[in-house]
Amino acid sequence: MKRISRASCEQLDCDDPLVGFRRNFKLGENLIYLDGNSLGPLPAAAAARALQVVEEEWGVDLIRSWNKNNWFQLPHIMGDKIARLIGAEPGEVVMTDSTGINLHKVLHAALGLRPDRRIILMEDGNFPTNNYVGQGVAALRSGGYQVQFADPEDLLDALSEDVAVLCLTHVHYRTGRIHDMDKITAAAQALGIIVVWDLCHSAGALPVNLNDCQVDFAVGCTYKYLNGGPGSPAYLFAARRHHGHALQPLAGWWGHDNPFALERDYRAAPGIKQMLTGTQPVLSLAVAETGIDMFLATDMNAVRRKSIALCDLFVRLVEQHCAGQGLQLISPRDSNMRGSQVSFDHDNGYAIMQALIDAEVIGDFRAPATLRFGFAPLYTRYVDVWDAVMRLQDILQSECWREARFQIRETVT
Amino acid sequence: MKRISRASCEQLDCDDPLVGFRRNFKLGENLIYLDGNSLGPLPAAAAARALQVVEEEWGVDLIRSWNKNNWFQLPHIMGDKIARLIGAEPGEVVMTDSTGINLHKVLHAALGLRPDRRIILMEDGNFPTNNYVGQGVAALRSGGYQVQFADPEDLLDALSEDVAVLCLTHVHYRTGRIHDMDKITAAAQALGIIVVWDLCHSAGALPVNLNDCQVDFAVGCTYKYLNGGPGSPAYLFAARRHHGHALQPLAGWWGHDNPFALERDYRAAPGIKQMLTGTQPVLSLAVAETGIDMFLATDMNAVRRKSIALCDLFVRLVEQHCAGQGLQLISPRDSNMRGSQVSFDHDNGYAIMQALIDAEVIGDFRAPATLRFGFAPLYTRYVDVWDAVMRLQDILQSECWREARFQIRETVT
Repeated sequence: MKRISRASCEQLDCDDPLVGFRRNFKLGENLIYLDGNSLGPLPAAAAARALQVVEEEWGVDLIRSWNKNNWFQLPHIMGDKIARLIGAEPGEVVMTDSTGINLHKVLHAALGLRPDRRIILMEDGNFPTNNYVGQGVAALRSGGYQVQFADPEDLLDALSEDVAVLCLTHVHYRTGRIHDMDKITAAAQALGIIVVWDLCHSAGALPVNLNDCQVDFAVGCTYKYLNGGPGSPAYLFAARRHHGHALQPLAGWWGHDNPFALERDYRAAPGIKQMLTGTQPVLSLAVAETGIDMFLATDMNAVRRKSIALCDLFVRLVEQHCAGQGLQLISPRDSNMRGSQVSFDHDNGYAIMQALIDAEVIGDFRAPATLRFGFAPLYTRYVDVWDAVMRLQDILQSECWREARFQIRETVT
Repeated sequence: MKRISRASCEQLDCDDPLVGFRRNFKLGENLIYLDGNSLGPLPAAAAARALQVVEEEWGVDLIRSWNKNNWFQLPHIMGDKIARLIGAEPGEVVMTDSTGINLHKVLHAALGLRPDRRIILMEDGNFPTNNYVGQGVAALRSGGYQVQFADPEDLLDALSEDVAVLCLTHVHYRTGRIHDMDKITAAAQALGIIVVWDLCHSAGALPVNLNDCQVDFAVGCTYKYLNGGPGSPAYLFAARRHHGHALQPLAGWWGHDNPFALERDYRAAPGIKQMLTGTQPVLSLAVAETGIDMFLATDMNAVRRKSIALCDLFVRLVEQHCAGQGLQLISPRDSNMRGSQVSFDHDNGYAIMQALIDAEVIGDFRAPATLRFGFAPLYTRYVDVWDAVMRLQDILQSECWREARFQIRETVT
């Protein structure tokens, strides 16, 4: 196999049809940011949008902005934009609240569609907050509800007519492994199971086609690949066929059929609006638009092609330049099975990641041993991959990560 | 009674110990903003704080901000600040999510403390979203839970040992009437009832002393009197004696005892942290600090004294200058019974409010007939009250509100 050089990476950047997007982000000159799968970087347009909302919409238009500047409609305006990235129709997605809150809504709504079943099935090793949500949902409903966990390899065998809801994360937070959404959804639905997908590590990283797969519900965040800003509100998809039937229980005036009539009793809105509860954080919601809009100007297939090329290049370079240093690939080697991240385990993973961050290569660490690197195609260059591996090689060969200061920091990122 | 003049209002402003706070807000020159009880105006420091969060914390520090800039701690940092305004202790308040979501959490937690009771008691005529939350909570729990409504005058008679939770709004959104928190809380608790207060129209408007009244739980918003910005996150108070016993069911990783251990199963955090669910909208949360910090530099008793003086002045001037024009005071005349707002009903209230807004006096309208005026002491001057009444007088006498363009707008503010 031909040896790769930095020059050949530069050539790949020259030939890259997405290369122009990088200038839409604010990124430090020497920084290699491989953590867009945790917090996407700052779009260049975000500061101006924040100032517009603060100084003009809030400062000048004040209360009138709820209508004049569409604040009331933001969950729907943004939801319809996100819908285009995940294969949904207008009116099937709202941007609101947090992923966790939205998952509570969706799981209750889904269980309501299968009143004779009691099991929520999840994947063992999933990002734990989804487990916590499922366990909270099960504990709140009387009648013996429970969360069951299946090994990812045994998922299809674990499906049965006792299962009410299957709730899976499309791309695994740790390994990046992709589930076959189409096949799993069909197999579950054939047994009458309602299927919920978490798209936190999918949307903006690869094409998602919820309606092609006939998915029932989905949730996801906007602050990772979609670059919406720290803790920007999440989104919720409910297939149109469930509107008016599957009601979420966190009732509030934003989900009322006519919020301004100030009726005494709750009357559920007929459409996706019912998935809303209360007043939304307008500033965070509005600023997120700058990140999401960038994806509407690109083609998710082109994004996916570059994502695969970046990840493949990283794996290949690490294996060429860091062989014998104790790194073990835990992501799928087959790019068709892998999202837009690559993870390696190492016994000293935490200290190595701290040394990398000090060397301005920002990835993240997930206990107990995982070094996680995200490759977001809109701003990551092929030379960034080269340079990141060179800095990793230096750190491993010099063993500078053994210095005490890397050992004592708190394990949080 | 001595006739008031604009000059005497100017003198009141000269003598006002709070007059200096007005320069901490961005307000239009000719604008009289009497809607801070719906959306507080822009603090002068908010734009710089928004830029700092966007350009420095997000743009430069990126993922490191979760620790470096205390993003993870913001719900607690802000909660502890709000605690000082509502008579709570550090560690009893978090700023998070929306008022509606927080009320869901709190009602479920409260019902969990009274497993043998089935009734949530609320006030008829309350802001409807609280009813909707209560009805959603009751519908989700099996076993015959229900929301009952009592007339405000009959509240104490409606208390009984069948009631699990009493949930009231401290200051009424429409009339501004204040409930006697101390007396009602004590009467309800004597019957074993858990007491939840909604402080949306109280915090920042008048002194609130939750722990003096031994309140169990409270919720409130930060975008009205606290000037936190459009849809800025809400807060939740849980008395320390309930920590670890009263668990909210919207479980998520932010409420886990050790979120970063990534344990498979939910283990509730022992303190107020359990009231959190998922990742918070950092930008909205951080910017809200500029509004809340202003109250920490003042004295709520001084705020209350000026609030009463402004409201009394408004009632007196309206009755002097707009007599016989069909306005009917629906707020309590006794200032001890009234929050920081004054409301009048008028058969043509909607059109009159539109004409007022066109004349740069911004109040709001609540169907079917209420003109609502909020008086926030940190930026409202006595001359503003005078000028507002003069403009109202002109509108009523000229009947300009009869022009068709005021009749056709949508009834939303």
